[in-house]
Amino acid sequence: MHELRKDPLLGRWVAVMSDSKSPGEYSFPSGNSEETSCVLCPGREKETPLEIASIRDGSRWLTRVIPNFKPVLHVEGDLGRKGVGMYDKMNSVGANEIIVDSPEHTKEPEDMGAEQVRRILRTYRERVADLEKDQRLRYILIFKNSGKGAGAMFSHPHSEIMATPIIPKLIKEELDGAKQYYAYKERCIFCDIMREESRVGERVISETRDFFAFSPFAPKFPFECWILPKKHACAFQDIEEGGIEDLSGMLLTVLQKMRKVLGDSPYNYFVHTAPNRIPRRNHWHTLGDDFHWHIEIMPRLHLTSGFEWGSDFYVLTTSPEDAANYLREA
Amino acid sequence: MHELRKDPLLGRWVAVMSDSKSPGEYSFPSGNSEETSCVLCPGREKETPLEIASIRDGSRWLTRVIPNFKPVLHVEGDLGRKGVGMYDKMNSVGANEIIVDSPEHTKEPEDMGAEQVRRILRTYRERVADLEKDQRLRYILIFKNSGKGAGAMFSHPHSEIMATPIIPKLIKEELDGAKQYYAYKERCIFCDIMREESRVGERVISETRDFFAFSPFAPKFPFECWILPKKHACAFQDIEEGGIEDLSGMLLTVLQKMRKVLGDSPYNYFVHTAPNRIPRRNHWHTLGDDFHWHIEIMPRLHLTSGFEWGSDFYVLTTSPEDAANYLREA
Repeated sequence: MHELRKDPLLGRWVAVMSDSKSPGEYSFPSGNSEETSCVLCPGREKETPLEIASIRDGSRWLTRVIPNFKPVLHVEGDLGRKGVGMYDKMNSVGANEIIVDSPEHTKEPEDMGAEQVRRILRTYRERVADLEKDQRLRYILIFKNSGKGAGAMFSHPHSEIMATPIIPKLIKEELDGAKQYYAYKERCIFCDIMREESRVGERVISETRDFFAFSPFAPKFPFECWILPKKHACAFQDIEEGGIEDLSGMLLTVLQKMRKVLGDSPYNYFVHTAPNRIPRRNHWHTLGDDFHWHIEIMPRLHLTSGFEWGSDFYVLTTSPEDAANYLREA
Repeated sequence: MHELRKDPLLGRWVAVMSDSKSPGEYSFPSGNSEETSCVLCPGREKETPLEIASIRDGSRWLTRVIPNFKPVLHVEGDLGRKGVGMYDKMNSVGANEIIVDSPEHTKEPEDMGAEQVRRILRTYRERVADLEKDQRLRYILIFKNSGKGAGAMFSHPHSEIMATPIIPKLIKEELDGAKQYYAYKERCIFCDIMREESRVGERVISETRDFFAFSPFAPKFPFECWILPKKHACAFQDIEEGGIEDLSGMLLTVLQKMRKVLGDSPYNYFVHTAPNRIPRRNHWHTLGDDFHWHIEIMPRLHLTSGFEWGSDFYVLTTSPEDAANYLREA
């Protein structure tokens, strides 16, 4: 029989089908595009908004950060919080940047090798460190859309950053869930999840010195994978060079495994780190102890329907245990 | 400048672009299919699971309810709640039904006229009334997927019902949001929203004797529309025949307006009603007073990306005021 499972962090229930679909049974829009060059390619730098940062080898850039062509959030201006009748609004202050992951148009991170993934991670860290200085910004979300079916605007490999003057709802829920768990148990829920997954083993995908990758017990999407630092840490941006080295190997491994199992299916990933401007520890707040940064990777193998949008309840057509098994063996 | 807005019920922030896209600027997968008949058509009743209910004209059915071909939830069995390590799970007990909206393969509700929409609404009411007798079930969600891009499994017009032994996360959040507002103001938030929208007028789409349709101040999707009963009521299933008559006209009007403005874009709608098994009023609980049933209609004009999935924050490329204006004038 199918079963229902509860996500221990958010309290969200999902249904896990007893007869798991194999990877070949999914049909998804290919992530590949016909294009072989675009405005994000080397040589067309003058057609993009002004470069914010880059990692270079001499005059040649290896990763490059630019503002979004049509940014949702703008760096200028004050917050302008105000009420309108019974509602609340504010100015769209923040940052919306594109990180060009590589000079090569047709190579995703999983094709690039660990050295390029390290550069991407260093670029992430540098941008977060820079943006978190802005007192108006409350949260910095790093995410990646790979393939049209995952909402990618460009076929050139890229990541994005959205720095918002509010804490987005999902982040707030994760923080609240982790805080509640900590208040009751005096332990980090993410550390407990890793211990449990390590003990059980059936949802483990890969392990390195510093990182742990697994299929969550009750995820939103089939073949979803989370990567956590083994040592408790609330903020991605505090990662050191050795951690980046280890994480680049882990991210590469997981993305390559996904490619082997799921072909060039569209996917998203995002980094969930601690918000800005919240003291990490004081007499009433324990953010440094209760939140644990992590990366969530979501293959986009099917379209969502009115059921998911109307309930925030998800159906897993492949069980997390079977998904982990396919990925572990790949 | 773009602006950020807060949904007063869920506390979710969204960004509203200052330069609204017009309906013609969206490119979405067409909702139409090449098929002209399928297993849900009259004459193939023997190929479907056993009929649960129908509305008939002599021997001919006009709406028909069957179990899902591959149900996610099953009517047999006990709940079997249990812990597994640090996690919680239970049996997938519930109901997962398909409502065939019409005998005609190629006609969506908006093509069918008010009499057929009334039959669909009566079928919804009858199924909810029947399912809520089951003491194991906590929530009954009615929803519709129209078009492949909206997750529809069949091109034949149909709705679905998912009756779950838990209250799905989004419903719980709406109930909690409404309860908090009521605790503070001693008024229903939905009634207040209607009063505010009626006063301001710029987001109103349509009004009938009993129902009110508008673009919410901070929705998830461009051209989203909510339909609320004007008179406070927490449960859809308590609707009377006069209400069904009025609602059928309203639903038809809104869907026809969407068709005129957005062509055959995919869409979802769902009914948010009160959960089962919660006393509607007693000395500590006010569900009957604080929750207000409603229908949410979501055109699916773009694909979601890692940003939405990683934050539960949405970008509205057409403002609710412009969307309401297009729909009101259509």
